[in-house]
Parts: sequence; C-alpha cells; structure tokens
Amino acid sequence: MKHPKLLLTLFLISLLSNPLFAQTTDPLPSWNDGKVKDKIINFVQAVTTKSSPYYVVPTDRIATFDNDGTLWVEYPTYTQVLFAFDRVKELAPSHPEWKTQQPFKALLEGDMKTVGASGMKGLVEILMATHSGMSGDEFNEESAKWLKTTQNTHFKHLYMELVYQPQLELLNYLRANGFKTFIVSGGGVAFMRSVTQEVYGIPTYQVIGSSIVSKYKKVDGENELVRVPKINFINDEAGKPVGIYNHIGKRPIFAFGNSDHDIEMIEYTKETKGLSLALFVHHTDSSREFAYDRKSHVGTLDKALDRAKKEDWIIVDMKKDWKTIFPFNLK
Amino acid sequence: MKHPKLLLTLFLISLLSNPLFAQTTDPLPSWNDGKVKDKIINFVQAVTTKSSPYYVVPTDRIATFDNDGTLWVEYPTYTQVLFAFDRVKELAPSHPEWKTQQPFKALLEGDMKTVGASGMKGLVEILMATHSGMSGDEFNEESAKWLKTTQNTHFKHLYMELVYQPQLELLNYLRANGFKTFIVSGGGVAFMRSVTQEVYGIPTYQVIGSSIVSKYKKVDGENELVRVPKINFINDEAGKPVGIYNHIGKRPIFAFGNSDHDIEMIEYTKETKGLSLALFVHHTDSSREFAYDRKSHVGTLDKALDRAKKEDWIIVDMKKDWKTIFPFNLK
Repeated sequence: MKHPKLLLTLFLISLLSNPLFAQTTDPLPSWNDGKVKDKIINFVQAVTTKSSPYYVVPTDRIATFDNDGTLWVEYPTYTQVLFAFDRVKELAPSHPEWKTQQPFKALLEGDMKTVGASGMKGLVEILMATHSGMSGDEFNEESAKWLKTTQNTHFKHLYMELVYQPQLELLNYLRANGFKTFIVSGGGVAFMRSVTQEVYGIPTYQVIGSSIVSKYKKVDGENELVRVPKINFINDEAGKPVGIYNHIGKRPIFAFGNSDHDIEMIEYTKETKGLSLALFVHHTDSSREFAYDRKSHVGTLDKALDRAKKEDWIIVDMKKDWKTIFPFNLK
Repeated sequence: MKHPKLLLTLFLISLLSNPLFAQTTDPLPSWNDGKVKDKIINFVQAVTTKSSPYYVVPTDRIATFDNDGTLWVEYPTYTQVLFAFDRVKELAPSHPEWKTQQPFKALLEGDMKTVGASGMKGLVEILMATHSGMSGDEFNEESAKWLKTTQNTHFKHLYMELVYQPQLELLNYLRANGFKTFIVSGGGVAFMRSVTQEVYGIPTYQVIGSSIVSKYKKVDGENELVRVPKINFINDEAGKPVGIYNHIGKRPIFAFGNSDHDIEMIEYTKETKGLSLALFVHHTDSSREFAYDRKSHVGTLDKALDRAKKEDWIIVDMKKDWKTIFPFNLK
C-alpha cells in the first residue's frame, strides 16, 4: 500500500455508489419499522441479489401502482372529477346551452345534490364535455396547469402536492434497485401524464390509464391529434391486467393498489411464476388523512380486505405503517 | 502531482465514460460518411448540447422507429405473415375443418396463388386463427421461439438476425445521448415484443403496434389474459400518431420509417415545436438486400419520396448510405 490516503478516498467513493452500503441507511424513512416494511425490503433483496433463488433479471422487474388513493388523495372526490367540474365553469361562456341542460345547469348553480343524482351517466357527460374537443397537446397543458395551481380546500395544498411521501420513497427505492415503475389506474391517462414525471419521477410512457378515442386529422391546416367524446378503454378492474398486457407485455412482480378495483391487477401479479409482492393501502387515518374502506363511495376496500387474510396480500395500515403522510409534513 | 501513474489511469478511465470522448470515435461505423450521417450527428448534437438553442431536456428526447423494412427485413413477405403461415401448418392437426376451408386449405396444400387471391380478408382470417385462443404468455413464447429458430430461405439466416446493423448502431447512439427509443409499427405488438429487448435493446413497454382484443378471465382455475379473435387497434398510417399519443403522450422529435404508411408519424414528428429529424429508408440495394419502392406490394414508398423533395424529410439510400447491412456481414 503506497498511497493509503488516496486509496481510502477511492474506497469511500466506491462505497457511496454501492447498494450494500445504501442498505445500511434507511431507504424508506417515512415507513414505520415493522412487518410491512420488512416484507418490502426482504422482497426487493430477494429478487435483486444474484445468488438468491428468487433473483429476477432487471428487465423483468416491473412494478405497477394504482394512482387514486394509492399514490395521491382520492377522498372524498376523485381529483380528476374536481378538475372536470372546474372545466365546466371555465368553458360555460362558450356553452350557453348548459344554462338549461342537466347536469351542467346544476353544476353551474352549485347544486351538487342534483349533480350527484345524475349518477354515472351525468358524470360521463361532464367528463366527455370537458376532456374532448381539443388537441392532445392542449389537454396536456390544461391538466398540468390545473393540477399545479388549484388548491384542495381540506388540506390547503395544491392537488399535485397531495401525494403520499412513503410511496414516493418506495418508488425511488424500487427504481434504485432496477425496477421500472408504472402507474396502472382507472383515471384518465392523459390527465395523470401531465404531471407524473414531475411528481413521481414516472415518465409519460409508463402511465397506463383509461382513455377516450383520439383521431389524427387536419385542423386549421395543421395535422393534429384531436380528442373525441367517445370512450376508448376503461383501465379498471378486469381492464387493468388487459391494460398491463397491451402496454407492458409482461406480468408485474410487484403491485400496489388500495381498493377492490385493484383485485385483478393483484391476482395477475401474484400468478407470476417467481416471487411477487402485492399490497393495498388501507385508509385508516382520520386525523392525518381519511378513514374509509368497506362502505366508501370512492376507493371501496371490501372483498380485498377479506381475501388478504387468506391470500398472500399485504394490507398497509396508513395510521400504523406510515410515519409521514405528505411531503409537506416532512420536517 | 504525487501519484502521476495512478492519476493518469483514473483520467483515462473517466474519459472512457465521457460523451465528449465518445464523439471522437465514430458512433455510426456502418453508415457511410456523407450528408445523411452528418445530418443525424448534427441533430443529436444540437438537441443534447446544453448551450444549443435547440437543446431538448432528456425526458422529451423521444425517438420512434417503424419496424418492418426500417429495422428488419420485410421483403418480399412480412415476417409476421410467414410466422402465421407456419402456425397454420403447426395447428392443422387440431383443426380438421381447415382441410376444406379456404384460405387454410390452399395454404396447407402449398397453393400460394389461391392464398394470395383471398386478399386482405383471407390474411386477416389466417392472422386471427393463429394469433388468438391462447394466453398472452403462451403467444409470447411461441413468437420468440419461431423468430429464434426459423431460417429465412433467401438469406440463410434466422429471422431475428435479419435486422439492419446501421439501425442497431443508430438506436445505441440515440440511447447513449439520452433518447428513449420506441418501435411504432403496423405489426402486431405482441409478436414484436417477444424479441425487441434482445434484438434492439428496446424494452417491451417501448413497443407500439397493432393488437387484437384480450380478455382477463378464469381458465382452468387460473386467471388468464386470453387473446380473442377481434381487432383492437390498427397502428398504421393515421393510427401511428394515435398510437404514439395513447402510449407515449408526447410528440417524438426523431422518427424513422420506410414507407407511405409512416407519413403521418413523420408529419406528427415534424410538427413538434422545436427541432426534429425525420428519415425514410429507401430500399435501393438489389444485391445486398432488395430494391423496391413506388410499386412494391410491401413497403410502398411513393408519396413520401415526392414529399421528401419538398419537405425536410431525409431519404436514406440503403446502397449508398449503409456500409454494412446485417450484423452477420460485419468482419
């Protein structure tokens, strides 16, 4: 050893980029220590350690996350529905017919009871009217602008800030271990995509969601991708494995949901040949977020709670397992 | 300087991973020097140099490539059609009805004239019969097996080896410069995906293609993703920008095609706000590959040839611009 000091420096530098060293610091500081956190870390080590019988090559390390209620707040009303409501108000001046046409009339008058009574049919009408008729580029701008500037009245924070800190850490931890992280949500793909890179570090092409039909045609002499008011694909329940197959072409080995609408994605993941991990967020924290499950009108978690007891599905208890809920709660 | 030898070694190691150093070696050795190669390299430098007025952030560096005739051989018959023909022969024992049913009867008897006369309708029947009825996992295995073991009679090489060496170099060059490379093809997405990682270094979730409908259902007590004989999406011509929008959610800044079926993808790319590059392979090499364009029954390059003269579209002359065609030609 002729140059001990330089060699020591080189060694310390090499340690910093060494995954073994990284494991001695906590990769999930906003997760409380316990069974759930251990299961996540043990799984990641089992599939990434070359000598492990459960080793998975990096190209097969696919992780899928639901979005509403799993990565960001969904209660008491889905963020995208609130965006659609705001769009109706914004677009109203160019739609004089809405003054007499339900459910638009009720929405503009603030009569939410009548809007609610219009049910799924009314909601789809509102979504179609506010999500189509523009180009893909324009809709992307509108969505991003709304998410980055609109404040949630309950939390007094922007909608794009209402993401769960433990999940941001988990996404980073998985990616640091060679996983590709995907969103697989019933929400509109174009709406989510407008901020997923910035908020979650998930590129636009790793977001799978519901969509309306788009057509490529000439608009004002320019070729444009125009969104038309017709449903293309519903990426929900049994649609989730279909969306995963069409977009990714591989089974995930890791899946995270929060409601009965994620059951099929979880089944599809758990039936992979090797080791896999499946988790559900259980919203149990009425003080820091919300508490809802079996009888909730959004994010119903009922059948999955029962099946988790018999099957190898992990229930994440928000109150017990998460030390911090939102990034803005970090000290 | 106390340890000149060690420091020099460290410096040389750092150079190897430095993009500036890489640029002094030829990143595209199978491309002949000339205007086309210069345009590609100038474009990549313009969008990746931070001080350039054309600088593009890495997350927006999207490059899309057609597959048939652009990345691998398509002449005189699309590879996937040959796969379907072979599948008919393989599946025939369990389909006794094909002995009397056209176009299956003709195909099994080797009467290709009658198969051809059955036209697009006959072809779709053959594709549906051979591409559906199994799980996604099973079809993936079948496709990969065929591509890795079936020899092309003209070139005497496996189908998965019939990829263009200059394009493999270009894909690597783009990725080394922070681009994400996608396939955007009229071919079946599931067929291509079975080998794209291995052949092109393109992950399954960066392949956009045509698809049939899939359904998630119970098969023998297991939940399975089953392919059903119904067209879901045709990712061709005006379908290409739609496929790009649905899957990527961003306009490419680089697109490479080889036929009139790629025109819309090229238009969509060229109408991006910043700098973009659009290219077409022109098959001009009757000795090393094939020569075909305006009147070809596959890969028709007619309108695009005319428009390329007026618009900023680059025609790549295979005979003139490509030093080597296939990886197995490399010395």
